[in-house]
Amino acid sequence: MFFALALCSPASAAHTPRSDPPVTVGIVLFDDVEIIDFAAPYEVFGTAGFGVVTVSRDGKPITTAMGLTVTPDHGFADAPAFDVLLVPGGDVGEAQRDRALLDFIRQRTASARHVLSVCTGASILGATGLLDGLKATTYFPRLGELAQRYPKVQVVADVRWTDNGKLITSAGLSSGMDAALHVVARLRGEDAARTAALQLEYDWQREGGFVRSRMADRYLPRQLDTRIRWPADLAITQLVSFGDERHWRKRYRVTTTTAAEALLARIADGVENVGGWTRDGKDGWRWHATADGRRVTMALATTPAATAGSYELELTVAVAAAAPGR
Amino acid sequence: MFFALALCSPASAAHTPRSDPPVTVGIVLFDDVEIIDFAAPYEVFGTAGFGVVTVSRDGKPITTAMGLTVTPDHGFADAPAFDVLLVPGGDVGEAQRDRALLDFIRQRTASARHVLSVCTGASILGATGLLDGLKATTYFPRLGELAQRYPKVQVVADVRWTDNGKLITSAGLSSGMDAALHVVARLRGEDAARTAALQLEYDWQREGGFVRSRMADRYLPRQLDTRIRWPADLAITQLVSFGDERHWRKRYRVTTTTAAEALLARIADGVENVGGWTRDGKDGWRWHATADGRRVTMALATTPAATAGSYELELTVAVAAAAPGR
Repeated sequence: MFFALALCSPASAAHTPRSDPPVTVGIVLFDDVEIIDFAAPYEVFGTAGFGVVTVSRDGKPITTAMGLTVTPDHGFADAPAFDVLLVPGGDVGEAQRDRALLDFIRQRTASARHVLSVCTGASILGATGLLDGLKATTYFPRLGELAQRYPKVQVVADVRWTDNGKLITSAGLSSGMDAALHVVARLRGEDAARTAALQLEYDWQREGGFVRSRMADRYLPRQLDTRIRWPADLAITQLVSFGDERHWRKRYRVTTTTAAEALLARIADGVENVGGWTRDGKDGWRWHATADGRRVTMALATTPAATAGSYELELTVAVAAAAPGR
Repeated sequence: MFFALALCSPASAAHTPRSDPPVTVGIVLFDDVEIIDFAAPYEVFGTAGFGVVTVSRDGKPITTAMGLTVTPDHGFADAPAFDVLLVPGGDVGEAQRDRALLDFIRQRTASARHVLSVCTGASILGATGLLDGLKATTYFPRLGELAQRYPKVQVVADVRWTDNGKLITSAGLSSGMDAALHVVARLRGEDAARTAALQLEYDWQREGGFVRSRMADRYLPRQLDTRIRWPADLAITQLVSFGDERHWRKRYRVTTTTAAEALLARIADGVENVGGWTRDGKDGWRWHATADGRRVTMALATTPAATAGSYELELTVAVAAAAPGR
């Protein structure tokens, strides 16, 4: 016990019962849930001294999206009261149509102090109607779908989480850890959240930190894929997709009998069809556009790969610095 | 499929089978394993397209440190071959004495390309003898214990992970996510690791990022707790412990019939007994020392708390900037 004074955050300290009223967290589980969406917040809440239980429709084992088997503590019928309800994401195709799940969330939201969705968990919350008129975010590639499917939800792209008071939504996957720390801050104060983050050896950014949707690939023409006359025998695999707010690089392995130059010409036709991009000369595969007052450049290149009929296709995006005064 | 070209990292792309030879990961599970220690690397490896399976001694359900019940895919006897073996931490008191577990790790390390320990998983690896002569790190509060218990291990405090070629060890809890990305980089190249990190909406720091043991509380006198003549009726609870490389603040709730000034005097006697600290005047509770060529200041204060016989005790540490030229 005294050990805690000079040394730093021994494991036992994290689980020391506090004299503050206890906080209980209920995590909803379902088949194809994404493991990090619930496991990272589980760790955060447990470290903050909250009691955490897992719940599924019937309390029987569920299988996560990547195959881990988890046995929930309760079914919906025998679940205890919660202060915080966590709705993780994953492959939520089934979950967002599961009436028992949606009813359970609606019912428990009424009595909870906070409801937190992580990643595509926002689509489940969207299906309950509880997000209507509120600000929500989600996994970066699903932002458009959330807005389209639930037009009453104010979808916000540019944040790591949204906080509507009771309902809080986080962006994709690892964002759930930051949003869970935000919930700890809401319930116990910022000092408690920072203490939990340090105990987890995690560099928590109070104001949100990394936002996936601010990266340079947001300027890519979203309609492009459907506007290209792709070769019928094409197989394409993404090898690389990363960058930062100014640059992005995507690399694909392409297998087709169509030669590289002919494929690039088809993609160029697609870019023209989408509109908004000006080609820089007729020889290279380079375009520019203006977005948010900045010059954005997009370029395509191919490189021979090892297999016959196979090559690599690289797409790069560069965003100029904002003009002074902007 | 074509969707992948313009839009960014659809969920399906992460699970697209690659033509690279598949990588399989085995995660060792045991009772009292820490959830984030295995769940965050599980997510990283799965996102990178690796196959992940979980293994325990008998393949029967295990209960994690915070209570989640997980059913492993295999027992040791029927576990398949792995390229990567993950040894998570948690409350490893039992695990590091479990002969079947230690034998399994020794045997599988022989055929693995990488073995990664997370957090106090380093103590389990230490018990196998496999870390003898190698560099290892662990959960910040257990660094001293690891060095004491396994004197042949070169314990390194100042890093988020150590990489000995085959054997890689990470610091505490959330560090396992970064170390798992490092393993992806080792096996598939840095581009693949960055792509996985971005898919996870995670701001991976290639060179390690946040290191818990660099924080200002490393200068606190570690022997202090045992050198203080504590009141027999004292109860002490840590409320806050956080800071950065220059400042640290710890706050405790103290319940005792000993008055605040008398407790501070006892702690001051303890500081004198530890040695190395010079008291700044006789009236205040403030000391300084020199460490790593920097002036370190430590101060104690108490504030009245709500309950009679109860008050708050605050310990702060401040580290001066390094002198120019250092």
